[in-house]
Amino acid sequence: MTLGADHPGSGKHKVAIVGSGNWGSTIAKILAENTEAQSDVFQKEVKMWVYEEKFQLPDSHPKYDSSKHSKPSNLTELINELHENPKYLPGVALPEHIIATPDIKDCVADASILVFNIPHQFVPQICKQIEGQHLPYARAISCIKGVSVSEDGISLFSDSIGKRLGIYCGALSGANIASEVAQEKFSETTIGFSPDDSKLKPLPEGLPKVDHELIQNLFHRPYFHVKMIDDVAGVSLGGALKNIIALATGFVDGLGWGDNAKAAIMRVGLLEMRKFGKMYFSNSCRTATFTEESCGIADLITSCSGGRNHRCAKLSIERGKSVDEIEQSELNGQKLQGTLTAKEVYEFLKKEGTTEEFPLMTAVYNILEGTVKPEELPDIIDPKSPKRSPSPHKL
Amino acid sequence: MTLGADHPGSGKHKVAIVGSGNWGSTIAKILAENTEAQSDVFQKEVKMWVYEEKFQLPDSHPKYDSSKHSKPSNLTELINELHENPKYLPGVALPEHIIATPDIKDCVADASILVFNIPHQFVPQICKQIEGQHLPYARAISCIKGVSVSEDGISLFSDSIGKRLGIYCGALSGANIASEVAQEKFSETTIGFSPDDSKLKPLPEGLPKVDHELIQNLFHRPYFHVKMIDDVAGVSLGGALKNIIALATGFVDGLGWGDNAKAAIMRVGLLEMRKFGKMYFSNSCRTATFTEESCGIADLITSCSGGRNHRCAKLSIERGKSVDEIEQSELNGQKLQGTLTAKEVYEFLKKEGTTEEFPLMTAVYNILEGTVKPEELPDIIDPKSPKRSPSPHKL
Repeated sequence: MTLGADHPGSGKHKVAIVGSGNWGSTIAKILAENTEAQSDVFQKEVKMWVYEEKFQLPDSHPKYDSSKHSKPSNLTELINELHENPKYLPGVALPEHIIATPDIKDCVADASILVFNIPHQFVPQICKQIEGQHLPYARAISCIKGVSVSEDGISLFSDSIGKRLGIYCGALSGANIASEVAQEKFSETTIGFSPDDSKLKPLPEGLPKVDHELIQNLFHRPYFHVKMIDDVAGVSLGGALKNIIALATGFVDGLGWGDNAKAAIMRVGLLEMRKFGKMYFSNSCRTATFTEESCGIADLITSCSGGRNHRCAKLSIERGKSVDEIEQSELNGQKLQGTLTAKEVYEFLKKEGTTEEFPLMTAVYNILEGTVKPEELPDIIDPKSPKRSPSPHKL
Repeated sequence: MTLGADHPGSGKHKVAIVGSGNWGSTIAKILAENTEAQSDVFQKEVKMWVYEEKFQLPDSHPKYDSSKHSKPSNLTELINELHENPKYLPGVALPEHIIATPDIKDCVADASILVFNIPHQFVPQICKQIEGQHLPYARAISCIKGVSVSEDGISLFSDSIGKRLGIYCGALSGANIASEVAQEKFSETTIGFSPDDSKLKPLPEGLPKVDHELIQNLFHRPYFHVKMIDDVAGVSLGGALKNIIALATGFVDGLGWGDNAKAAIMRVGLLEMRKFGKMYFSNSCRTATFTEESCGIADLITSCSGGRNHRCAKLSIERGKSVDEIEQSELNGQKLQGTLTAKEVYEFLKKEGTTEEFPLMTAVYNILEGTVKPEELPDIIDPKSPKRSPSPHKL
């Protein structure tokens, strides 16, 4: 590793992004726009690690050139040639100083700020490849949605990345449908970031402190407003638990119960999300994150308005099929996050003996299992309500 | 006034409802279902005051009888004959023990619980007619949405009713689209009720105490779940301020900005609603009412999903017309609540010198006035955000 003029020793942060899917490419675009706009703090170039694969550029692409594109090309080469990710974010211009690389070591080697945006199941193997290759004083942000839940407990992907690499890692989450952000439609996001600098490898002299202001400046765009908070756990939990609630609202919409019922389910769901954070991350989770921030209430609203979990749950009721069957017929082999999270969270709650404290999340699992009917939701979420016989009056 | 077996002296509460529109008739149905189901506490009969008008029953009505219905009839007589409000809630069966009356004195005379559900502009004149005619120990609930805002300050309709009649009046509000509740689709509601019994005329001996449990029992149905709280101001404020936010989300939807942007506006709107309650009703308003209860977050969600304020604001952007013009062309002479509330709240905030503390609500007024463009909303609601030049990268 040679120290060039652009090395962090130059007093400027170098940013790298690990991952290049729909959301990864969108975040890369944001980062690169900001490194260019703030050349006093950031080096312009942003390296983006791409899982190398072959891609056949369609001949309908405006830059299709039969002399080069008649056969499948490496995706990294296409990205660097077209300044676009034609497979995962087609039609969106990427800044030319995003450099796609298939070599993870090359990507992270001299980056003082690492941004992770990969499918969560790849976290262990990617971290293994990065270990020892990155700058010891690097800081990281995870844009990976959700948390890892097992019977042993719940862990945050940001914590997992941080521990594996021996660095600090915060988390970004919000009401951020990637395609809308990529088109520069306005949205907000939340970044949880609270490093204890006294326990971290110090930054080289001259390199600006990586604090809330710097991270906000790195991610904030006129169309992507960033709110910085300390609560990393709350940011991550919201992005996982909302998918369970989105399934519940899908069931209710499938029953044709209307907007009142849907809003009621969302309200109860939000309170269960908050209670979960309070109960299992009491030291690190502030309850206001759920009710006040983009990663809480706003992300919940977006996920219950559209999104795959909501849609598949709705179709399952309308067609009288299981959500698994709908997933298979509608999603071309992709997997629903919500059904997996509902199962994991249920198993965790069962082990903790707290399923009754979370009646809505528990009911979603039971509806998926076929042991509870969605029509029972009103009584389930409000078990203390007075029971009355149905109205006998008919026209 | 003679004391019959069913007089409150009998140990049972008598319930009357003042108002019979869409929402009033729906609430009457709920009340009557509960008075029938709980004959130990309530007298079965529920009187409903109806503003008398002539109504021509359409010959397509299943109970149309040309010998009776060929000419317009009194609405009260039709309601009592058909057990349906054919003008304002057609197609919904009302319990036969709802007795419609055009005589307000007859309606309230021996009622120990009065429920108000009239257009807010009629509150003063109706209260004048009721004054001195009601039981001195009656308790009341207002289902009138919103608050009264003027330059002099903000007053709750429930307070206004209570003061005019010298009785206590609580408030009911929630994510309650009337037509869905009338069809017995599931919803929740919030009732704010906190009488200081020591300052009220005591109930006759033997008449059950009018507390949270009794009021919940009077309104709760299997399809209409009631949460009782003390915060009357919060319940009432939510129902008013949400209409301003619904206009804002309509503007954003009209711009085609997508679900992320809409959720962001709702999030910011909810926080401004809460701040308003905290700032101007600090003694009587709990902030959690907005973020946790049906009358807060859930009602906001429903109003921003559909509803007239949202729809008219969206159309105004799509068609390049003012919201007033859209109101005239789309609403058949009905008036939007949101535009009026936005103006009233703006004038109040201006007088208080706090418009900058409520940038979203202020922006909605300015957009309605044409002095601000809806495209400016992101910067307006987040005035401290770092300003960056727009992205120069195009494909």
